[in-house]
Amino acid sequence: MESDYGLPRDLSHLQQIRSLYKPHLPPCLQGTTVRVEFGDATTAADPSSACAISQSFPHTYGQPLAHFLRATSNVPDAHIITDHPAIRVGLVFCGRQSPGGHNVVWGLYEALKIHNSESTLLGFLGGSEGLFAQKVLEITDDVLATYKNQGGFDLLGRTKDQIRTTEQVNTAMAACKALKLDGLVIVGGVTSNTDAAHLAEAFSQAKCSTKVVGVPVTLNGDLKNQFVEANVGFDTVCKVDSQLISNLCTDALSAEKYYYFVRLMGQKTSHIALECTLQSHPNMVILGEEVVASKLTIFDITKQICDAVEARAKQEKYHGVILLPEGLIESIPEVYALLQEIHRLLRQGVSVDKISTQLSPWASALFAFLPPFIREELLLYPESDDSAQLSQIETEKLLAVLVEAEMNKRLKEGIYKGKKFTAICHFLGYQARGSLPSKFDCDYAYVLGHICYHSLAAGLNGYMATVTNLKDSLSKWHCGAAPITAMMAVKDYGRASGALMIGKPVIHPATVDVRGKVYELLRKNATKFLMDDVYRNPGPLQFDGPGADSRTVSLYIEDLDYMGRIKELNVYLDKVRSIVKPGCSQDILKAALSAMSSVTDILSVMSPPSNGSI
Amino acid sequence: MESDYGLPRDLSHLQQIRSLYKPHLPPCLQGTTVRVEFGDATTAADPSSACAISQSFPHTYGQPLAHFLRATSNVPDAHIITDHPAIRVGLVFCGRQSPGGHNVVWGLYEALKIHNSESTLLGFLGGSEGLFAQKVLEITDDVLATYKNQGGFDLLGRTKDQIRTTEQVNTAMAACKALKLDGLVIVGGVTSNTDAAHLAEAFSQAKCSTKVVGVPVTLNGDLKNQFVEANVGFDTVCKVDSQLISNLCTDALSAEKYYYFVRLMGQKTSHIALECTLQSHPNMVILGEEVVASKLTIFDITKQICDAVEARAKQEKYHGVILLPEGLIESIPEVYALLQEIHRLLRQGVSVDKISTQLSPWASALFAFLPPFIREELLLYPESDDSAQLSQIETEKLLAVLVEAEMNKRLKEGIYKGKKFTAICHFLGYQARGSLPSKFDCDYAYVLGHICYHSLAAGLNGYMATVTNLKDSLSKWHCGAAPITAMMAVKDYGRASGALMIGKPVIHPATVDVRGKVYELLRKNATKFLMDDVYRNPGPLQFDGPGADSRTVSLYIEDLDYMGRIKELNVYLDKVRSIVKPGCSQDILKAALSAMSSVTDILSVMSPPSNGSI
Repeated sequence: MESDYGLPRDLSHLQQIRSLYKPHLPPCLQGTTVRVEFGDATTAADPSSACAISQSFPHTYGQPLAHFLRATSNVPDAHIITDHPAIRVGLVFCGRQSPGGHNVVWGLYEALKIHNSESTLLGFLGGSEGLFAQKVLEITDDVLATYKNQGGFDLLGRTKDQIRTTEQVNTAMAACKALKLDGLVIVGGVTSNTDAAHLAEAFSQAKCSTKVVGVPVTLNGDLKNQFVEANVGFDTVCKVDSQLISNLCTDALSAEKYYYFVRLMGQKTSHIALECTLQSHPNMVILGEEVVASKLTIFDITKQICDAVEARAKQEKYHGVILLPEGLIESIPEVYALLQEIHRLLRQGVSVDKISTQLSPWASALFAFLPPFIREELLLYPESDDSAQLSQIETEKLLAVLVEAEMNKRLKEGIYKGKKFTAICHFLGYQARGSLPSKFDCDYAYVLGHICYHSLAAGLNGYMATVTNLKDSLSKWHCGAAPITAMMAVKDYGRASGALMIGKPVIHPATVDVRGKVYELLRKNATKFLMDDVYRNPGPLQFDGPGADSRTVSLYIEDLDYMGRIKELNVYLDKVRSIVKPGCSQDILKAALSAMSSVTDILSVMSPPSNGSI
Repeated sequence: MESDYGLPRDLSHLQQIRSLYKPHLPPCLQGTTVRVEFGDATTAADPSSACAISQSFPHTYGQPLAHFLRATSNVPDAHIITDHPAIRVGLVFCGRQSPGGHNVVWGLYEALKIHNSESTLLGFLGGSEGLFAQKVLEITDDVLATYKNQGGFDLLGRTKDQIRTTEQVNTAMAACKALKLDGLVIVGGVTSNTDAAHLAEAFSQAKCSTKVVGVPVTLNGDLKNQFVEANVGFDTVCKVDSQLISNLCTDALSAEKYYYFVRLMGQKTSHIALECTLQSHPNMVILGEEVVASKLTIFDITKQICDAVEARAKQEKYHGVILLPEGLIESIPEVYALLQEIHRLLRQGVSVDKISTQLSPWASALFAFLPPFIREELLLYPESDDSAQLSQIETEKLLAVLVEAEMNKRLKEGIYKGKKFTAICHFLGYQARGSLPSKFDCDYAYVLGHICYHSLAAGLNGYMATVTNLKDSLSKWHCGAAPITAMMAVKDYGRASGALMIGKPVIHPATVDVRGKVYELLRKNATKFLMDDVYRNPGPLQFDGPGADSRTVSLYIEDLDYMGRIKELNVYLDKVRSIVKPGCSQDILKAALSAMSSVTDILSVMSPPSNGSI
C-alpha cells in the first residue's frame, strides 16, 4: 500500500469542483506578518488538578494563552514575528479519520510556503507507526492537488492512536531528531492531544528542539473546553447523519409500520446524537449522559421506550425513529460493571469461552439474560483507550429485541391494544465518517493548519491550535493557541473514563452537559418530538447555494467564545488601569476601589477553593 | 394518524428553498393546448405472449401509442384537444415509497387546474386500502405547499400494493363510481402498474367511465422496457446510496483494515447495485443476474470474494468495499430452491418451528449449514409479490461470515499469508428511500403528473404516462403514453418471477442485461476497480451549482429513446410515401422498391416468428 500514498487520483465532477475551492483566511492571518499576543499564564479549569498537572508537566504547564492578531492591530505589547527562517515540520494523523483532516495539511503547507518557500512539510505515512518508522511523504502542490477539501485520511493513512509508552516517546523523539524537525503537528482527538502534551514535555525536558502542536480533529465532538469550541469533522458527520436520520423519519411516516432504532457513532459521549436530534427532530433520543445522571437500568430504558410506543399507538401512530449514541451501552450502570469485569478477565488472559464462568454471580446473571449476539459483542477485546468496542456492539438491536418482547407481553396481557411492534435497526457511522467535508469543516481545518504554522513560528510547544467565535462568519473568527495542559484534569474515579485515564492528568472527553443550554432545548421539545412527528430534513450536505453555510445547531446555542471574552476582560482591566493612574482624582480612585472590591468579592464566592494549586 | 395527512409542517431552510423550486415543462406540454398524435397499434414485445395478453385484455390490448406534441407542431393527423370540461381524478400511491412521488400529485394537480379550475384531484389516504375505503383528501394549493419537491409518500401514505382479487377490483370500481371519478391515477412499480392494467380492463368491460392511468414510480428501476426509460426515485436513491458507498470507500482506504460488505435495497433486480458501482467504483459487486447466468453456488461466490481478498493482500491491501444487491440471495440456485420449499410449507400453514423437519433432505442439509441468524430470516413469510422478504435477509452478513471462515482456513493452511480478514456489514435502503428527491426526479415526476392529465383528457384507458429521451435536457424530452398491455409478457417458468407471475400476463421486472452496454462497461473496469482502488465520490446530492443536473450513468450509456425512434421511423416512412407518389419517375420507383424489399428482408430475418400473435 505504502507506495500508493499521495498519488493523484480520478475525481468525480463534484470532487473536482470541491478541490478547486479555497477557504478564506480570517483577517488576523492574512498577509505575511502576524502579531502574537501572549495573555495571562493559564491554569487548569479544575483547580484541584492543577498541582498534579504541574508536577507531571514541569516544563510546559502554566504557559500563557497566545492570540494571533493583525500586524496592524493596536495592541502595544504584541510581538510581531518578522523572521521566518525555513523550517521543517512533520505532521501525523492520529486516531480515527474525520472529515476535513486533509485541510489541516493543506493549510499548514500553504502557511509554510507563504512565509518561506524553502520550508518543508513531511507527512508521516500510516499514522503513529509511520512516525516511529520515520516513513514520510514530502507534501507538495502535486501531492495535495486531489486531496484538497476531500474526506478521509487516505492522503497519509493512519493506524493506532497511541504515542504513550516511554519507548514510543523516545522513538518519536528519535524520528524528529533524525528528520531534523523544527515542529511536529499531531492531528487527532482527546487521546492524541494528550499524547501531544506528553511529547512536548518530554522533548522540552530532553532539550529536543522540535516543538509539538496539536489540532482538534475528531468527529466525536468531545474535545471541547474553554479554549476549543468545536472539532474538525463534527459538523460534517452530524450533517450526513442528520440527512439519513431525516430520510428514515420520512420513510417511517410514509410506511407507517416501522420503528427505526438508529445507533450513532461518536464514542463515549452523545454530542452527535444530541446535535442530530436538534437537526432532524426524531421522536426520541436516549443520551448516555441522561442515563448516567438518572442511573437508568436497561429495564428502565426499555420501559421508557415501550411507554412511548404505547402512547403513540393511542394516537394510531405505529412508526417512529429513536436515536441511540453508541456510548449508551457503557452508560448503563449494570452493563458497565459487567463490561469492566469482562475487560479485566480479558486483560488477565482468560480466553473468551471461559469468561462467562468466571464472572461474579450478578454479572453472570445479567450476561445470561442478554441475547447471544450481544454476549458475543461484549466479549470483544477493549479499545486502546480502554473503552469497549462501541462501534461493534449493537445496542440498537439489543433494545429493539427487549422492547419487542415487552410490547408482546403487554399485548398478551391486554395492557397494550395496538398493532404489533416492528423495529428495524441501523448503525450510522462509517458512511458519514468518509464524507466530503462540509464547507465549515473545510474552512475550520484550513485555518487551523495556518495557526499551526504561526504557533511554531512563535516558538510555542505543547499548545493546541484554536479558533473561537466559530458561530460567526469566518471574517470574525479569533485565532489563537492554548497550552494543552490547561485542558487537562485528574480524576481519581469516574465511570465515563477508562481505567487508563484514572489518576493521571489527561484531556477528558467533554460529556453532554445535562444542565447546559443545548440539552435544555432538547428537553423543551422532547414531548413535541415524541408525539407530533415534527420531522425536519436538513437535506443532503450542500456546497453551493442555500444551506451551504449552515453550522451545527449546538454551535449557535452554546454561544462560547471563551477566548474572545478573556480578551475582552483584559481590555476592561487595561482601561481601568489607564483611567485610574496616579494623579487621578480621589473620587475616581474611591469609585474604582469600591467597584473592584465588589467584583473580587463576587468572584471569590463563585470560584471553587483552589487548595490544590501551587 | 388519518387526520394528520396533508397537514402543513415545519420545513428546514433547505426544504423550504426546495419547496419553492418549480420544474419547467417540455415545450410539448407548455400552454393550454396540446396535440395528441396516435401512432400504430401496439403489440407485446414478446410475440409469443401476444395471444394470451389479447385474450386477457380484450378491451385494452392493441391500443396505439400516444405522443403529446406542441399545438403548433406540424403533424397533419394529430388531434388537438380543445375541450377541457371539469373532471374529477383520484390518485393512489401503491407499493413502496420512492423519492419524487409527491411531484406526480403536484404535476397532475397543476395540469388539472390550468385546463379547468373547476376540476378536482382527490388523493386516496393510505394507499389501496384508502381506495377501497373511499378515504380521500382533496388536493389544494395549501395541502401541497409543504410537499412540493419533498421525499416520501407521507402526503397520502400507502399500505400494501395489491388491487388484484375480483373483490378488490370491484371495491375499487365501486369507489370510483361513488366518487364520480373520471380518472384514476395509480402511482407505483411493476406490480401496481399490472394492477392498473387489470383495473382498466375491468372498468372498460363493466362500462365504468373511470379511465385508469399508471405512473412508473419505483426506486428499484426495474420497470423498464421499450416505452419506459427510467422510474421516478431511482436517480435519487442511486445518488444517496453512491454517496454513502463512496464515503465507505474513503473510510476503508483511510483505516486500511476493514472490508465493508454493503447490501443495497432494490428488490429482485440489481439495477441499483450496478448504477452505484459505476458512480462509486467500489472494489467489487456481485449482481444477481450474473449469478443466475453463471449458475454460481454460494460456495462459488464465497470463493470469488476470498480469491479477491487474497489477491489484494498480495499488494498489501487489507481493505475493500463489496456491493451486494438484496435480490442476490434469491439468485443463488440452491438458496432459491430452499426458499421455494420454505414458502410452500409456510403457505400450507406449517408453523415456523416445524419447517426445518419437513424440508427435502438436501434443502434440510443446506438449511442446517447456514448460520442461525440467516435461518431465522429465511423463515419469514414471503411478500405479497411472492418473493422472500429481501430487505430482512442479511445476505451481506452471511457472505461476510462465510468469507471470514474460509480466509481463516486458508490462513491456517498457509495458503493465505496476509493479515486477518475483518468485515463490517451495511444495508443501505431505508436511509435513501426517504431522501429529498434529486432535481431529475423532481422534474421527471412533475412532468409525468402533467402527462397523466393529458392522457385522461385524451380519453386514454390502461395507459402508462411516459417520457423518453430523458438523458437529454428537459426541453428535449418526448412525452407520451403507452398501453400497459404492450409491456406485458407471459412466462411459463422463470426463476426471477414469483409463482404468482407464472402463466399470467404481467409486467415483469426488467433484469440487468448481462449482454447490455451498461454491464459491459462494468466488466471492462472490473479488474481496475478490484485492484487499484480507483474510488470516486459523486458527493452528496446537490440542488444548486455543480452536480445538481447530473443523471444516472446508466441513462447516458443505455441511449434509449425508443419512442423517439418510433417517431423518427414514421417520419422516414411518410417521406418515402410523399416522394414516391404516383407520377414519380420509373427510376425513383425502382430505387424505392429495391431499397424497401431489402429493408423488409433484413427485418424479417431479424424478427422472431410471431406464431403466437393473432
